Amino acid sequence: MIIDIHGHYTTAPAPHTEWREAQLKAWEAGTATPLYPRISDDDIRETLEKNQLRLIAERGADMTIFSPRASAMGHHLGDITTSAAWAAACNDLIARAVALYPHTFVGVAQLPQQAGVGLEEAIRELDRVVSMGFVGVNVNPDPSGGHWTSPPLTDRYWYPLWERMVEHDVPGMVHVSASANPAFHATGAHYMNADTTAFMQLLQGDLFADFPSLRLIIPHGGGAVPYHWGRYRGLSDMLGKPGHAERLMSNVFLDTCVYHQPGIDLLMDVMPKESILFGSEMVGAVRGIDPTTGHYFDDTLRYVMAADLTDGERDGILSGNALRVYPRLASRLAARAA
Amino acid sequence: MIIDIHGHYTTAPAPHTEWREAQLKAWEAGTATPLYPRISDDDIRETLEKNQLRLIAERGADMTIFSPRASAMGHHLGDITTSAAWAAACNDLIARAVALYPHTFVGVAQLPQQAGVGLEEAIRELDRVVSMGFVGVNVNPDPSGGHWTSPPLTDRYWYPLWERMVEHDVPGMVHVSASANPAFHATGAHYMNADTTAFMQLLQGDLFADFPSLRLIIPHGGGAVPYHWGRYRGLSDMLGKPGHAERLMSNVFLDTCVYHQPGIDLLMDVMPKESILFGSEMVGAVRGIDPTTGHYFDDTLRYVMAADLTDGERDGILSGNALRVYPRLASRLAARAA
Repeated sequence: MIIDIHGHYTTAPAPHTEWREAQLKAWEAGTATPLYPRISDDDIRETLEKNQLRLIAERGADMTIFSPRASAMGHHLGDITTSAAWAAACNDLIARAVALYPHTFVGVAQLPQQAGVGLEEAIRELDRVVSMGFVGVNVNPDPSGGHWTSPPLTDRYWYPLWERMVEHDVPGMVHVSASANPAFHATGAHYMNADTTAFMQLLQGDLFADFPSLRLIIPHGGGAVPYHWGRYRGLSDMLGKPGHAERLMSNVFLDTCVYHQPGIDLLMDVMPKESILFGSEMVGAVRGIDPTTGHYFDDTLRYVMAADLTDGERDGILSGNALRVYPRLASRLAARAA
Repeated sequence: MIIDIHGHYTTAPAPHTEWREAQLKAWEAGTATPLYPRISDDDIRETLEKNQLRLIAERGADMTIFSPRASAMGHHLGDITTSAAWAAACNDLIARAVALYPHTFVGVAQLPQQAGVGLEEAIRELDRVVSMGFVGVNVNPDPSGGHWTSPPLTDRYWYPLWERMVEHDVPGMVHVSASANPAFHATGAHYMNADTTAFMQLLQGDLFADFPSLRLIIPHGGGAVPYHWGRYRGLSDMLGKPGHAERLMSNVFLDTCVYHQPGIDLLMDVMPKESILFGSEMVGAVRGIDPTTGHYFDDTLRYVMAADLTDGERDGILSGNALRVYPRLASRLAARAA
């Protein structure tokens, strides 16, 4: 079985996205929030069958862990009330996609967050989506959208969320949204920087001493971390915590959203294979064809299949590790098989 | 010949660093700036012979392109007047190190910068240091120290500096300083993020159309860029500029401050070898010994020597490329040889 742990509903029906615009306009104008539009099952089917489902079939995956479009989370827009309504609308749409294709999609949620605001709404939404069958959440380490005003992930600010995630046994993908800072291109700088930053925050702190069963996924192959693994191991020492970088990798997982073979090869060479999860970010950040290979940049399954791995390692990366990281998915599949 | 293009005077005599503290205290208190202390040639010799010179000899380099300690530039502290005085003091100290060891060190300058302030002082200091024999400058893309309030490097804001650098034919290393943002560890997150961000800014813009002879060095192996080279090539296409990522590499150079063999191997495998310059950041970010190799993490010469390169490629990386990027150094060496 092949599980892609990093798919976003980037092709959501237009009325969904238009509602978000109308919601924010109403918020700015101080008028009533418009009603969420009627979106038919066929509308949803159409946006998925032309895109994700077609590509999943063409490329040969079986299942996608599916969450709302990350760049549209927009935690820096509106306030916590608009964020909560938007997260709920996005998650409800994911739930419908999952209900329509229960053998292909499994839900991961967007949380309502806002810089400088507590995590009560995020926890409320976490409880709600878990009861709906979601298996994980995306956590934005920078809800300010590129101004980085929130405390590090190891700060007590985040603890109530980590506690509840542990209670529910759901992992979190550390994933920023759009950049409102002109210095940072979203997918080319802000995403990469967030991945690197999150890892370094975890290296400076000792979060998993307090939450030994918490699992965090750092997407996009871990940003700059595997390429600079010597630096991070060395910084571990300099911080007086020899081996801490390596130890983190029992709780931290990296996906394979690295869009060329040499990058994937480095990832596999350097990082523990038990900590790597197949992901493509499809349909996502980079949609074109690599002229040097003739294949889509984000067809990361090709790179994983071509990497120097034992069958056991490859199986782990393609599904076994994901089933450990997302136990609610494993239980579901086991129940279905029984 | 082996030229290390990325060395900082991280071991400057204590009175130099103490003066900076006193300068900032006086600025805060609104009192007169204390006099710069007397530092003897022997003080300078001692701090260099125990550290950089010893390591250069042990590791086998010939020459280091030497600039003030990057993390101490502190453009987010004080104001443009204190920044100007501090840059001048730091550069004067570099000039003294160069004068004491003219066959080993060559100077690169710190510039006075301040977020939200024009680049007049930076240009004034650039003129001054070039007249003193410096061959390049460090340019901080984020003088706010981790708040990223400055416009992208492609913005007109930076043009007067680029113009003068072109006039003087000196390259710039894009290098941030300390992080005043608790989200970002300086050497583990802020440095990497700045490298990635700078490259992406250059990819979004077209700076070298306006400055075809400008040369910028992105340190620390280019941050996340080589590891994600597929993403950047793909983003090039998505920005409507196919091939732009590759074309940038005629004006953009990456150093080898990547502290393990697999990272260096990826760098060599993926990026044009004409765009890679040997550097170690020594004595710098990571000072320990890698327990997996028994050698210093930042002994990057070992990795370069072990990489799969032709003799010509290796010579280019160790000195030939640097002589193209720093023509003022090349002229000096030619004059000395004549």
